[in-house]
This record gives sequence, C-alpha cells and structure tokens, in this order.
Amino acid sequence: MEDKTRAAMEGYVEAYTKNEKNLFIELWDSNAVFEDPVGSDPCKGIEAIGNFWDFAHAEGMTITPSDVSYVVCGNEGILKAVMKVRNESNGTSMDISIVDHFVINDSGKIISGRAFWDQNSISSN
Amino acid sequence: MEDKTRAAMEGYVEAYTKNEKNLFIELWDSNAVFEDPVGSDPCKGIEAIGNFWDFAHAEGMTITPSDVSYVVCGNEGILKAVMKVRNESNGTSMDISIVDHFVINDSGKIISGRAFWDQNSISSN
Repeated sequence: MEDKTRAAMEGYVEAYTKNEKNLFIELWDSNAVFEDPVGSDPCKGIEAIGNFWDFAHAEGMTITPSDVSYVVCGNEGILKAVMKVRNESNGTSMDISIVDHFVINDSGKIISGRAFWDQNSISSN
Repeated sequence: MEDKTRAAMEGYVEAYTKNEKNLFIELWDSNAVFEDPVGSDPCKGIEAIGNFWDFAHAEGMTITPSDVSYVVCGNEGILKAVMKVRNESNGTSMDISIVDHFVINDSGKIISGRAFWDQNSISSN
C-alpha cells in the first residue's frame, strides 16, 4: 500500500512539473474530492477536479513543484512542496509553500486531496 | 477561529518546549483523539492522551520542537516541526521531521491530532 501512496504523490508532482493535465486526471478516482485550499468549497468528482486544473493553468500559468518531500503512512500521504506559480504574460510570480494530504484507495487512485496553505505560505519572487 | 487554531498549535509547541504535561493536557477536548504516527492505534480521550505523553517522556526523555511553522485553515491547522528527541541517560538522540494535523473546536480545544511521519522522517543526530 505504501508504494501506491508514494506513486500517487510522485505522479502528482510529475503532472505539475510536466504541465500535463492527462497525467493529473489519471491519478484520481472518478468520485474523488479535492479541497484547495482547505476551507474552500471542495471540487467533487473528476470533472470538477479537471476544471480546477484548467483554472489553475489558465492563460499560460505554470505551477512547478520544488523542494519536494513525502511522508507515507499506509494509504495516507503528505506532500510538502513549494509550488512556483509563474505566468510570463501577466508577470505573475509567487511561491506557495503547501502541505497536501492525500488518501489513496486500493487501486492506487486518490480519493481525497486537501491542500493546506494560507496567506503566510505565499511569498513573491 | 483562526486565532484559536493558531493558539492551540502554539500551546502544543510550548508544552513540548517547556516539557510541561499540564500545559499539554489543557490543550485537548476531553473526548479528543490523537494518532501518532498516522496508521497506529489512536489514543481516544484525554486519559489515553496523557498516557501517551508519559510514555514519550519516560526516563528523562525530552522532545524539543525546532524549525516550527504553522498553516491555519479555519478550524484546522498544520504544524511542521523537527522534534529533537533526546535522552542523556541512554544516549538517545534523533530528530523526527513531523507534519501534525489538528482540528480545533469552538472552545479552542483540540478534538483531533494526527502526526504524519515515517522512517524517512527520522535522522540520527
């Protein structure tokens, strides 16, 4: 199980790094729930999660993880990373230090993703 | 609410730093659940949580947080820290990089604490 949990998180980082929505979508169970940031309205189901990806990557925005580390506890995992948000077209440049909590099912798909970050997690760059 | 969440986590760090069980116990709701590490049998209720503290501090063991940072999302919080576990009497010296997830109730008490760490989170020192 730990291998599946780690693989799902590595896939998550890879999808963002390569900026490939297809890789991202494949990681999730069709009924998964994604909450980013924690406290906001969650995206329920794979279509809503895909729409979130599109929103986060609109108009050439890229989000590249760095300083990545993982914690694996059975079918739950923690991803720590700095997400480097960049958009040359409008000058956006900020780093968000995130703690993502994932729950993985027996098929290795993510059934719950929750991204913890707040205003103090953001730095301009 | 965010202030209560932050205060509970700051109290948690203070209790460990000062090595004061009373400070630690005051932080929790009487029916709280504490799971450390995630995947182990949780401590249910304040008595079990107090026993956990005693176990973790047996025979002069100290656990001092360093490199502390917080994320606050409403009534949920993340504490990132390196827990410096030391015991001069038996030579124990290790650092555990932890990610703690807390849920706080309206009274500012912790109702759920879950500590994420795995073998890769531990370094000898």
